[in-house]
Amino acid sequence: MKEIEYFKGVKVGIVGYGKLGQALESRIYAREDMCLVAIFSKREGLVSPYGTLLAKTDDLPSFENRIDYLFLCGGSFSDMEELSIKCARIFNTIDCYDNHAKMSEYISSLGKVNKESKTTSLVACGWDPGLFSMMRCLLSSISEGDATTFWGKGISQGHSNALRQIGGVKDALSYTIPVARAIKQCKDGEYVPDKQKHKRVCYVHKEHSASKRALREIICHVPDYFEGYDVRVHFVSQTRLNKMKQKLFHRGEVFKSFSIKENHFDMNFSLNLDSNPLFTAECLLIGLNALKSLARAKKYGTFTLFDIPLKYLSPLPKPNLVSKYI
Amino acid sequence: MKEIEYFKGVKVGIVGYGKLGQALESRIYAREDMCLVAIFSKREGLVSPYGTLLAKTDDLPSFENRIDYLFLCGGSFSDMEELSIKCARIFNTIDCYDNHAKMSEYISSLGKVNKESKTTSLVACGWDPGLFSMMRCLLSSISEGDATTFWGKGISQGHSNALRQIGGVKDALSYTIPVARAIKQCKDGEYVPDKQKHKRVCYVHKEHSASKRALREIICHVPDYFEGYDVRVHFVSQTRLNKMKQKLFHRGEVFKSFSIKENHFDMNFSLNLDSNPLFTAECLLIGLNALKSLARAKKYGTFTLFDIPLKYLSPLPKPNLVSKYI
Repeated sequence: MKEIEYFKGVKVGIVGYGKLGQALESRIYAREDMCLVAIFSKREGLVSPYGTLLAKTDDLPSFENRIDYLFLCGGSFSDMEELSIKCARIFNTIDCYDNHAKMSEYISSLGKVNKESKTTSLVACGWDPGLFSMMRCLLSSISEGDATTFWGKGISQGHSNALRQIGGVKDALSYTIPVARAIKQCKDGEYVPDKQKHKRVCYVHKEHSASKRALREIICHVPDYFEGYDVRVHFVSQTRLNKMKQKLFHRGEVFKSFSIKENHFDMNFSLNLDSNPLFTAECLLIGLNALKSLARAKKYGTFTLFDIPLKYLSPLPKPNLVSKYI
Repeated sequence: MKEIEYFKGVKVGIVGYGKLGQALESRIYAREDMCLVAIFSKREGLVSPYGTLLAKTDDLPSFENRIDYLFLCGGSFSDMEELSIKCARIFNTIDCYDNHAKMSEYISSLGKVNKESKTTSLVACGWDPGLFSMMRCLLSSISEGDATTFWGKGISQGHSNALRQIGGVKDALSYTIPVARAIKQCKDGEYVPDKQKHKRVCYVHKEHSASKRALREIICHVPDYFEGYDVRVHFVSQTRLNKMKQKLFHRGEVFKSFSIKENHFDMNFSLNLDSNPLFTAECLLIGLNALKSLARAKKYGTFTLFDIPLKYLSPLPKPNLVSKYI
């Protein structure tokens, strides 16, 4: 029995009320088939423009019987792993966890909790990781050789969050910018190491007392996120950052070229997004379609988009898929 | 116990020895993990450049214990449905059946046979239907509105086969050409009926006695394939056709654009192929990865690419997929 019986449809919650949480909230209100029960944040004094109940993450356990599916929008850098595991003990969860380097470990520890707690989690379900992961897997399966990915120009939410965790950083943005020469080399079939494909351009508003030189040094050595990349760090005012934050565009492409004798083949998937968080929110929402199917079938464990047939991502019933899309 | 014990790996057969069958044969010989037991054709006197055994389709039943998976490369127009059903009574099959209009019916009748005969079939597994179907399904699931597809310029194997079935046609090719104005309208968010998006330009080498006017009339009224389209029919010599057949290029794109308030979003998947049959053969080969998984798990029935998680299409084991492609 649901405590809040007058809610119709699927009852969801959001953990994290940054750009992604806010974008997702707006997309949930644009739909009629789900109800946003509460948003959980560690920050105090937040108000939702939609009047959504704002609760503390510590209060999550008391929502056990009121929320069916929990969107984790907390960013991947700091305590995301810990928080996910806490949530998966009680709820079915979906996230767009984006720390590629720790992904296998994350899936494995979350999966154990899911199985113990009889819950289901879908992870890495944004556009990258997410749609782009699907494309890398699909295109790499065709003939020989792996697909290549380029991102940007655009703000990376994951990398911006990583910057904000650093002591002495008040606020920050990290832009991912593809290296033109590297794109050409890849399309010509040359191998380019991942970290040489993109520049990371960081805009940081620092604490007055923080040393620029020390911050640069720290940023350039954040493992997985910045270490090994061509990193530029610019120190700017909060006003400048706020202005930049209005433009959350992003883009990217996954491609693969190969040849069989004299025949050349190009496959390309590209996204051009005016708003990264709004598009990521839409990706989480198709993931929810799959999470619902998995949870209802009592498939307990941690899933990625590699485990899920397309029919579960679509809101349409199977016979309609065949007649409309085959 | 396999009759032909000295074959290592997966034993496959090909039904149909047109352009696709030939391309697939060459791709199978480029791999070491499968063995092409025989190619089945209705035509007499064929010789394989690889020395593959050529057998009559009537002999298929005698290969029951010698072939694990059968590729159906017979074209969709004439007796493909009938032949598929005959094959699925004995073998696990995979095809790139492309008659969109009859797809649901095809899946349903084939599925019954699969269940009775404890076999597994994967259908519509080329690039369209196939990869493009996956993209239409995926992109259409995101936010609102359906994805749009444009093909060409390129030869359509399905439509060319359809022409060749017509009495009085000795040989023929059908080119699909996108209508430039329609592409623009679609990208601007306007609705364009499917049959107004492309022209069908047919090159026909006719029997001496056949009437041009009568053939034009018949071609323009072939249901599903030509009826309702802007169709141009040119009568040409066999020499000219043979020259055109050397260039089996094709291309196409699936895209979707949508807006949320002032934010615009573009998603685009495109293919640019020097050889349509070679690429279709590669698509069938990733399908085989999935068919193997399904058949080994005793999942009897007819499947489409909508039913199959990406991990089954990839030749790599799951943990590698996560570390390489997420």
